[in-house]
Amino acid sequence: MIHAAFMNFLEHRILQEGIVKEGNILKVDSFLNHQIDMGIMKEIAHEFQCRFKDCPFNKILTIESSGIAIATLLGFFHDVPVVFAKKAETANCTDDKYVSTAYSFTHRRKNHVFVSRPYLQATDRVLIVDDFLADGEAAHALIDLVHQAGASVVGIGIAIEKAQQKGGDTLRAEGYRLESIAIVESMDACSQSVRFRPQN
Amino acid sequence: MIHAAFMNFLEHRILQEGIVKEGNILKVDSFLNHQIDMGIMKEIAHEFQCRFKDCPFNKILTIESSGIAIATLLGFFHDVPVVFAKKAETANCTDDKYVSTAYSFTHRRKNHVFVSRPYLQATDRVLIVDDFLADGEAAHALIDLVHQAGASVVGIGIAIEKAQQKGGDTLRAEGYRLESIAIVESMDACSQSVRFRPQN
Repeated sequence: MIHAAFMNFLEHRILQEGIVKEGNILKVDSFLNHQIDMGIMKEIAHEFQCRFKDCPFNKILTIESSGIAIATLLGFFHDVPVVFAKKAETANCTDDKYVSTAYSFTHRRKNHVFVSRPYLQATDRVLIVDDFLADGEAAHALIDLVHQAGASVVGIGIAIEKAQQKGGDTLRAEGYRLESIAIVESMDACSQSVRFRPQN
Repeated sequence: MIHAAFMNFLEHRILQEGIVKEGNILKVDSFLNHQIDMGIMKEIAHEFQCRFKDCPFNKILTIESSGIAIATLLGFFHDVPVVFAKKAETANCTDDKYVSTAYSFTHRRKNHVFVSRPYLQATDRVLIVDDFLADGEAAHALIDLVHQAGASVVGIGIAIEKAQQKGGDTLRAEGYRLESIAIVESMDACSQSVRFRPQN
């Protein structure tokens, strides 16, 4: 366990209210992705503004559902539009939308993920945001959609990265600017303990 | 068509950017429920604050996905938490959640809709918000969840009500305080015209 003095606001909140369940599950329903606490949401949005201040972006891309709240407040503070990719069990590649796929470990199925073409333009500089990053399936699908549009990904902002899974390290190895506010290195359901990767 | 001078900001925007499709479909993807324009979102949230200023509420309830952006900004301005009900094809009634059902005309299936019990308390005064109201299936499911918790519904705030369908009139007849910013009385895909119900 890292010392409390070095933890940030989100790590503190996770220790206070997060519940660790068997199967590497961290439940933060009480403030992040079922009930949304506005205080923590505001801090998350401001933290992303701060961490990406050297990466100008004109659009935020997220995926339904739980990324929408973070994306909306960040879009409001930064005054840029938010686009949320939609999920469907089936989606045809058509002239009017970009389609990618992502396996959902939560729902144990492959989802199609799409954005209508007018909402991603080749000139867009896109910041991708989401509440969780685990295997990186959703993040890679969003990156794929941005690239299909010929637009650029300026960075990826994640509230909670689960570092036991490979998503974060893969994205860093691929050269993406990834900023995760809390990086969970390990957790244990028995003792209800969570260990975070130290950050500057 | 009502005269432009009497239209509000949302009605204006619908006429500018909305697309009427066969089957009584109004697409407002460019600013409301796929790409989210922060200017209009801010106006919608402020309009709800204004319309419900005599109805104190301590919690906002919406349903994933497209209600989340409106609910988040309203929650931010009003400094109250937002809860979003989740949809699932199956959900067991268990000790830990309230479950209701709503038929989705978009997806042509019955969805289970649920909220974890800790996030609706008997003392809560809940404002329900959503982007669209048509047959009222989602609104009635949310009301049901609030009532299961023993909490009260102080009002229902809707961005766009489709008055050709029965949801709005049913809710008013049931005595709910329903505020819809734009009420579409009729629309025509051929001429791309939309007629709104005049409001004060």
